[in-house]
Amino acid sequence: MRIDVLSLFPNMFAPLRESIIGKTIEKGLVDLEVTDFRDYTTNKNHKVDDEIYGGGQGMLLMPQPIFDAMDAIEAKAGNRGRVILMDPAGTTFNQAKAEELAKEEHLTFIAGHYEGYDERIRTLVDDEISLGDFVLTGGELGAMTVIDATVRLLADALGDDRSAVDESFSTGLLEYPQYTRPADFRGLTVPDVLLSGHHANIAQWKHKEALKRTYLRRPDLLQQYPLTTTDKHLLADIKAELSEKD
Amino acid sequence: MRIDVLSLFPNMFAPLRESIIGKTIEKGLVDLEVTDFRDYTTNKNHKVDDEIYGGGQGMLLMPQPIFDAMDAIEAKAGNRGRVILMDPAGTTFNQAKAEELAKEEHLTFIAGHYEGYDERIRTLVDDEISLGDFVLTGGELGAMTVIDATVRLLADALGDDRSAVDESFSTGLLEYPQYTRPADFRGLTVPDVLLSGHHANIAQWKHKEALKRTYLRRPDLLQQYPLTTTDKHLLADIKAELSEKD
Repeated sequence: MRIDVLSLFPNMFAPLRESIIGKTIEKGLVDLEVTDFRDYTTNKNHKVDDEIYGGGQGMLLMPQPIFDAMDAIEAKAGNRGRVILMDPAGTTFNQAKAEELAKEEHLTFIAGHYEGYDERIRTLVDDEISLGDFVLTGGELGAMTVIDATVRLLADALGDDRSAVDESFSTGLLEYPQYTRPADFRGLTVPDVLLSGHHANIAQWKHKEALKRTYLRRPDLLQQYPLTTTDKHLLADIKAELSEKD
Repeated sequence: MRIDVLSLFPNMFAPLRESIIGKTIEKGLVDLEVTDFRDYTTNKNHKVDDEIYGGGQGMLLMPQPIFDAMDAIEAKAGNRGRVILMDPAGTTFNQAKAEELAKEEHLTFIAGHYEGYDERIRTLVDDEISLGDFVLTGGELGAMTVIDATVRLLADALGDDRSAVDESFSTGLLEYPQYTRPADFRGLTVPDVLLSGHHANIAQWKHKEALKRTYLRRPDLLQQYPLTTTDKHLLADIKAELSEKD
């Protein structure tokens, strides 16, 4: 996969070269190139932003540097790929979008910094993506987050035998509580069932705890989850146990 | 504000030293310290993770290195501050949470990498925060995102006359389309009204376009927005215009 990023702060993308994503780059699975679109401005003062027509606070990214940087990517790579604008007014990013993007051969991210985009920049764009309902100083962390979630889905990206499947948002439930050694740490102990070696009991405990955590924290996920008859009984037990505690 | 981060990849946090957040650090508004909790493991092989009790794929972060790193922060700073665990099973981050965190004097983030956390680590924690419904290779980008959204709210963080107020998620509507020079770029032109100098018309256009964009992209936000009688008329116009286009 080729990934291009247009940004005024190319150094901010260094973290992507660490860890698992860095390994996909080393292995040649991903070719990441970050372009400083300030290099493409034709403005004699190297400006990339200007005041807003009709008034308004702050500045706006001008179309010219971004259009020209995009032309340069197209000339180099043969195409622009799927173009993604990081913007608070975009569609909220989720795992389904990550899976969709992971199928592409070329992604190009436009990450503005603080200022808004001239509306005409959106004519270059296939997807407008927002990380969530919060305001950031720029699109860089958003682009990195989308890249991280996408690239980790690529075949072999996870290496060894770790699977990307058995995780929150893949099973539809939040993960059950998990424990590792020691069995007693500063008086905090691991539930007996997990030390019992009784596989059926362990499996049932895990499933019930996953249901319980999802019920308590993310009832919205539970509404979309296809509950079996056993699940419904377990949920009734969970609700009874919780109300006893009150 | 003091911000501590526990991470196995301290270098990943370099981007926070760029841009506006970097300026708050330079100005002494924010004191950011990233601790590699591997430095605190008592394991002779410097391990920080171990297998999961009761089985399961992957590894889990052990309690000991994180508990001991937390003790070291407390010894140094006098307190642990508000402790935030970055975790997909946490509460979804939003602007209200950023505003809440911006009032604190000391925040400590625990950012795991790929593996899950031993459940006992959660006993150290005040908030469990998820960036959204997607899976990342680690909590580093999430912690950076929460820090970015929080720190930009601190007084003076934005410098000059740019206001944090007139933005998406603050007004309750998405931002209207914005344009900067030139008025004609590659045949793409700025709407006449914005060049008219007629302030009342411009204000009405902006508000109508903000309503329209929110209606089209984020009807969920519109449901929470207190519509005036004028807004209701504008929305009726917008719906009529859109159905004419079909």
